[in-house]
Amino acid sequence: MRNTIIAMLAALLVPSPALAESEQWIVAVDLWGNTAYSTLTIDRDGERISGNLDGDRVEGAVSKRKLEFTAADAKGAPSRFTATLSGDRASGEAEMPDTNDAARRVRHAFIARRIPDRPAGGPRVIDFRPTDFSNAFDPHRAPVTTIWPGDTVRTSTIDSGGVDAAGVTRALFGNPQTGPFFVAGAAPGDTLVVTIKRLAPNRDWADSLDAVVGRAAGLALAKQLDGLGKPVRWRLDRTRGTASPEGAEGALKDYAVPLRPMLGGLAVAPGFGFQPVSTGDTGNFGGNMDFNEVVEGNRVYLPVQQPGALLYLGDAHALQGDGETTQYALETSMDVEFSVDLVKGKRIAMPRVESPTEIMVLGQAGSLDDALKAANTGMIAWLRADYGMTLSQAAQVMGSAAKFSIANLAGRSVGVAAKLDKSLLPRR
Amino acid sequence: MRNTIIAMLAALLVPSPALAESEQWIVAVDLWGNTAYSTLTIDRDGERISGNLDGDRVEGAVSKRKLEFTAADAKGAPSRFTATLSGDRASGEAEMPDTNDAARRVRHAFIARRIPDRPAGGPRVIDFRPTDFSNAFDPHRAPVTTIWPGDTVRTSTIDSGGVDAAGVTRALFGNPQTGPFFVAGAAPGDTLVVTIKRLAPNRDWADSLDAVVGRAAGLALAKQLDGLGKPVRWRLDRTRGTASPEGAEGALKDYAVPLRPMLGGLAVAPGFGFQPVSTGDTGNFGGNMDFNEVVEGNRVYLPVQQPGALLYLGDAHALQGDGETTQYALETSMDVEFSVDLVKGKRIAMPRVESPTEIMVLGQAGSLDDALKAANTGMIAWLRADYGMTLSQAAQVMGSAAKFSIANLAGRSVGVAAKLDKSLLPRR
Amino acid sequence: MRNTIIAMLAALLVPSPALAESEQWIVAVDLWGNTAYSTLTIDRDGERISGNLDGDRVEGAVSKRKLEFTAADAKGAPSRFTATLSGDRASGEAEMPDTNDAARRVRHAFIARRIPDRPAGGPRVIDFRPTDFSNAFDPHRAPVTTIWPGDTVRTSTIDSGGVDAAGVTRALFGNPQTGPFFVAGAAPGDTLVVTIKRLAPNRDWADSLDAVVGRAAGLALAKQLDGLGKPVRWRLDRTRGTASPEGAEGALKDYAVPLRPMLGGLAVAPGFGFQPVSTGDTGNFGGNMDFNEVVEGNRVYLPVQQPGALLYLGDAHALQGDGETTQYALETSMDVEFSVDLVKGKRIAMPRVESPTEIMVLGQAGSLDDALKAANTGMIAWLRADYGMTLSQAAQVMGSAAKFSIANLAGRSVGVAAKLDKSLLPRR
Amino acid sequence: MRNTIIAMLAALLVPSPALAESEQWIVAVDLWGNTAYSTLTIDRDGERISGNLDGDRVEGAVSKRKLEFTAADAKGAPSRFTATLSGDRASGEAEMPDTNDAARRVRHAFIARRIPDRPAGGPRVIDFRPTDFSNAFDPHRAPVTTIWPGDTVRTSTIDSGGVDAAGVTRALFGNPQTGPFFVAGAAPGDTLVVTIKRLAPNRDWADSLDAVVGRAAGLALAKQLDGLGKPVRWRLDRTRGTASPEGAEGALKDYAVPLRPMLGGLAVAPGFGFQPVSTGDTGNFGGNMDFNEVVEGNRVYLPVQQPGALLYLGDAHALQGDGETTQYALETSMDVEFSVDLVKGKRIAMPRVESPTEIMVLGQAGSLDDALKAANTGMIAWLRADYGMTLSQAAQVMGSAAKFSIANLAGRSVGVAAKLDKSLLPRR
Repeated sequence: MRNTIIAMLAALLVPSPALAESEQWIVAVDLWGNTAYSTLTIDRDGERISGNLDGDRVEGAVSKRKLEFTAADAKGAPSRFTATLSGDRASGEAEMPDTNDAARRVRHAFIARRIPDRPAGGPRVIDFRPTDFSNAFDPHRAPVTTIWPGDTVRTSTIDSGGVDAAGVTRALFGNPQTGPFFVAGAAPGDTLVVTIKRLAPNRDWADSLDAVVGRAAGLALAKQLDGLGKPVRWRLDRTRGTASPEGAEGALKDYAVPLRPMLGGLAVAPGFGFQPVSTGDTGNFGGNMDFNEVVEGNRVYLPVQQPGALLYLGDAHALQGDGETTQYALETSMDVEFSVDLVKGKRIAMPRVESPTEIMVLGQAGSLDDALKAANTGMIAWLRADYGMTLSQAAQVMGSAAKFSIANLAGRSVGVAAKLDKSLLPRR
Repeated sequence: MRNTIIAMLAALLVPSPALAESEQWIVAVDLWGNTAYSTLTIDRDGERISGNLDGDRVEGAVSKRKLEFTAADAKGAPSRFTATLSGDRASGEAEMPDTNDAARRVRHAFIARRIPDRPAGGPRVIDFRPTDFSNAFDPHRAPVTTIWPGDTVRTSTIDSGGVDAAGVTRALFGNPQTGPFFVAGAAPGDTLVVTIKRLAPNRDWADSLDAVVGRAAGLALAKQLDGLGKPVRWRLDRTRGTASPEGAEGALKDYAVPLRPMLGGLAVAPGFGFQPVSTGDTGNFGGNMDFNEVVEGNRVYLPVQQPGALLYLGDAHALQGDGETTQYALETSMDVEFSVDLVKGKRIAMPRVESPTEIMVLGQAGSLDDALKAANTGMIAWLRADYGMTLSQAAQVMGSAAKFSIANLAGRSVGVAAKLDKSLLPRR
Repeated sequence: MRNTIIAMLAALLVPSPALAESEQWIVAVDLWGNTAYSTLTIDRDGERISGNLDGDRVEGAVSKRKLEFTAADAKGAPSRFTATLSGDRASGEAEMPDTNDAARRVRHAFIARRIPDRPAGGPRVIDFRPTDFSNAFDPHRAPVTTIWPGDTVRTSTIDSGGVDAAGVTRALFGNPQTGPFFVAGAAPGDTLVVTIKRLAPNRDWADSLDAVVGRAAGLALAKQLDGLGKPVRWRLDRTRGTASPEGAEGALKDYAVPLRPMLGGLAVAPGFGFQPVSTGDTGNFGGNMDFNEVVEGNRVYLPVQQPGALLYLGDAHALQGDGETTQYALETSMDVEFSVDLVKGKRIAMPRVESPTEIMVLGQAGSLDDALKAANTGMIAWLRADYGMTLSQAAQVMGSAAKFSIANLAGRSVGVAAKLDKSLLPRR
Repeated sequence: MRNTIIAMLAALLVPSPALAESEQWIVAVDLWGNTAYSTLTIDRDGERISGNLDGDRVEGAVSKRKLEFTAADAKGAPSRFTATLSGDRASGEAEMPDTNDAARRVRHAFIARRIPDRPAGGPRVIDFRPTDFSNAFDPHRAPVTTIWPGDTVRTSTIDSGGVDAAGVTRALFGNPQTGPFFVAGAAPGDTLVVTIKRLAPNRDWADSLDAVVGRAAGLALAKQLDGLGKPVRWRLDRTRGTASPEGAEGALKDYAVPLRPMLGGLAVAPGFGFQPVSTGDTGNFGGNMDFNEVVEGNRVYLPVQQPGALLYLGDAHALQGDGETTQYALETSMDVEFSVDLVKGKRIAMPRVESPTEIMVLGQAGSLDDALKAANTGMIAWLRADYGMTLSQAAQVMGSAAKFSIANLAGRSVGVAAKLDKSLLPRR
């Protein structure tokens, strides 16, 4: 584990701070082989430091070689951290109350690393060319770079099979992701806002199947499915903006569907207690949502679960029907440009998407029935929190104006989106 | 049962046939207290008659007072019908092979009634002013009138609480329906096409609730639902074309949703073996579908299950969000104009809707998961039957262009609609 | 409708009352073509009568030819009933407040019929030989006889295909039922207790299929199901107490399953607002539960929904695996002996079964997920109501001792049973 | 990743081989940051080696410092492995055809480690005292020891909160597991058989909650759940063999449930392409199944997915109702004794359990409906594979004898068990 922590922290470049502002450090504690990350925010007053560790009050001292502090929440016994300091890194031991028996104290190793201060000059545009890709939404993977709210990133994704714009295999199949991007200042309890400024296929073909996923096949259809699931190559006509199955005949001879490029995968890293999650899976952190509203011009809201958020993206589709009933959509590689922002201290229960005309909440669960419940519950929560509605009012709005569409049927969880027309709602 | 049969048949007015064409009769056989309806089609050659009974070959004789014939399918032992004739009615006994033991013969009473010939002069426009309403989709209820393919009907529906345009209770609450209309020539295995030519609220208010149905409430929301479910009256502004909750304040002060009048209930009578079905329930015959695409300008396809189809309509909504999550939508009374048509010998498995721009299939089941499967299965069947696609091609179309929306969450069954943009499809 | 009411009431034989006790009448009001039944309980004081109509206070007068009374609940405007009396029957008109507008009064026809007083001499044993059978759980069907709490009935059921002990078709296929039995004194809000004292096949064969219902077939299995669903005749060895498929070979050569005769169908009539329900369907009233714990020695509790309860039984199985995955279990005809009892004023939300060792609650819904929720909710309600538990305690009992089995997969709704070992529970 | 591979392989102790038999090596290839494990089986003939790599034919040469071989399946282009050898370890590079373009060759680093030969003297009894615990079912975690089919292991598990027999926190909460045990000879496609020979609580208390999981709460119950979910400590009376909530009063004053110790967690490592899986989750590899038939005396069958199977166990319960509706069962620490066996080349689709009297298949999915389908599909597959039944026969057996119980409601997936009485089945 140490190695993965070090790898992760190594990626946080540390320029000199321009101005005296609070320092931020990532603290990684080894809890019996599991790494828990926290954000340490401190101000120095000579050798004395004060601040907080994920909200717990911090008091301590720092010298050239040593960092010592206690962190305490309102009621609990304090934890005591003692570390050897070396520039922007620290390594030591934390003595904490036992979660099962507060009277007992337990020692855990920890390391810490200072997060660089924001470069002067305001929001930047960062070009990032990925060289390797992640097959997990992994809270322990080293970030590819650190970005700040307001920054824009220009990058690219390879297809779900690991193949790039030039047709070369660059990663293991199964939705390999670009990232993660460390968003400085993001902490659990915040909402990360990802605005997709541009999303464009960077090659002329996509791969799909002629499958029908089991979740979309009634018994009468299921009995006919042997032999289906064959590969289908699609031609992307980027000039006309359409896609057609290569060599289609008969009824599909002239079949051409408008391109609507989307990101199948968009995620922050899952929270503490979660293992790295397969890039084929989803959760409240986003993931392989395969939701065809994650498109250029739309904004995606994700609940931050780890310091730095750790944003991943990949598995782009040239277009996709609701539900991705063919198991693979039109899988292709893309150029992507996005910006990030943070809503500090705003906790959302599940992913949200906002288009120029609609707000949307994505419920995800093991059945459509549970996903629908989640989506409706999430949308009512949004109406109450941001639009000033009572529960009764939110219920009336849903009854009179809700749209529910099925986002995804091809994964372990399915997705249902609740949507509302923004023109009907009061300003927020 | 006799009485209900007589009531039903009494409504079929019998003008003299204009020309010599095949006669059609409804035959109602009493099977141990259950009535089974068939269509008898015969040609006369003097006293000899020949034709078919729901496809089984018929041979027999008719005289002034007596009707006798046998009906036989390709392999089975024939059934023998003997009746006393009195003008356009007959009453007698059928001797049939036992379903559990073909060697045994069983006698069942039957009555029959001739269906009038089509009035000369082509399609008509019929004004029908309902005076009583049905609380069941009932195969045994007397038809309000007989109509023919191509005919247009102008009528009205009362609201789901049984209240009419003037605010007077005219029927028992629970989606009382106008109808049934007997569509001459319709037989099980045909598809009835109902084109909604006009649908307009005929009063200025609608009733709804501020409820959240259990199917739309996740656990976190369910815990908050006590006290919800209160009546909400809505004002319908028919000039501006919007609806607003009466006396709304705060966040809903300016809330105004565009009217989109729809029929919550549209059904043919359920088939043999089914009891009369509550007007709160649904089935492949349609029913209380509460699908917000059953609107003016759209065409609904229903699988005929009884001779004459027996078309019911009611439970109109001024507008409705997907799923009708408030349990009641904006329940109001309406003026309705529709025409009917038949696709003979075309069997569909579940209701379909066609708009000027989309084709839609409505899957209905006890869970969204099963309803989605039904909808996708039904749409693939449509693509294969009418658009000349192979299963592989239909799968590709669904994967690249399907839209799935949730129609209904408020009934015993739920509904999921599969939709496709007609502009993407070949002509059918 | 009148005719069905008359048919129903005609079956209530009226012996002279032995003693002066409160009279009970069934009142049937025609609400726009729908019949609503109530129980009128009155005491006479000369020509004055007082009592209640389904709990609403009644005051009025009776003479040789006339019956007049008002019925009022605590807050509502009273209803006024005026009828011509002829012995134990009355026929007249009720003037009631409009449900949608209390200020308006509406007139509805009604008829009434006195329920006979209980025969002297205590509980009886009644032999009832059915001659016709019902294909619906129908609140309007004429009762076959009137019985009283404590009475025992000896009767028989035919198989689900309508075939009797002698192999003769006696009714239409689809679970034709014996009954209904009118249980004097039963009213909505009571619980009917049916104790199955004897249940024994009365012939040596049963009919089944080699099917797998769609609800039990994963995709891999569904693809193989073509050709399945063929009839299988089983031999019932009533001496050894086992059943075996006729002519079985290979792996099933010696297959012999112990008989465990059960009633697939057991129901009271559904309540007001419900149409007659197909005998293939279920509800909180019971119905085609196909639960293999409805066996000899067990007691079934059903929530009464109509005056007289109207008990139906049928569709017996020689034995059945959980879920009835073959669509048909071992369908056969039976001799049945049962007794009835009433728990007055005790409302249960769904069917319960009690064996010598277990209490069980049957949740029924459109999905197993919802049926499980219902069963657990129902069992916790039982623990709280009859075993004096708090919600916290009931939760602990379920977590430590609940058994959940799947009752039924073959119908429109599915069933899940929650079970608890009575030896763990306090006495109730 | 290298480090985790090395850690894993380091645990495979290598005694000298007693006899000349085929050597077995684990080969770990780094596929763009993801490790894929294979089994290399070789025989030496001087410097020449031949054998197979997961079934692909191997030809090559070995010298003191070098290992070289090609591996080819029937049709594919061969992969070429070249490594530096150092005793029982090798490290080098594999050149393989690109999965997306067979004409292209890709180079991947790999390491290999020889699996020790089986110690002489037949099956052993191994005492293993765990010192650290895994919070993931992790294919990359270093095995705690190597065992062979027929061996018995005596070990212990800590409770789901990480607390041991002495009440000391030993690991992070969330079902920390003992293991993994490397079962020599196990390969993907085999079935691992775990026989639970002894399972006994080793302390006098257990922790639970008074919760009702959302999946078990109907709407009426959900509305009442605020305030529930409080900790409940249970006393385990190991002499009497019962458990009771500490300090219970009222209706639970005498509540005592028989102990039935079970393993909530039992798993092999998930296969290639899967990330380490949380010990709160499940899959076809087993996992946090929380199935109350994983008890002493029973045998669990798991589908091997990685070389060595990598067996994990933990999360023991003193007893548990079906479904674990309290979210926590009676969580406690245990002494465990189990033996392992292998069925080579026998692939099962999901976990199976065998008791002295029953065979059981555990279906797991996102809804009970899908889990039931899986269980029935799995049981029919078993009947066909091991009991010689045709599909028709297996369907008849399920229809007449299946038991379905609900195993687990508390996780992301739920579990349904299909069960059959062995006495009804032919010998296998």
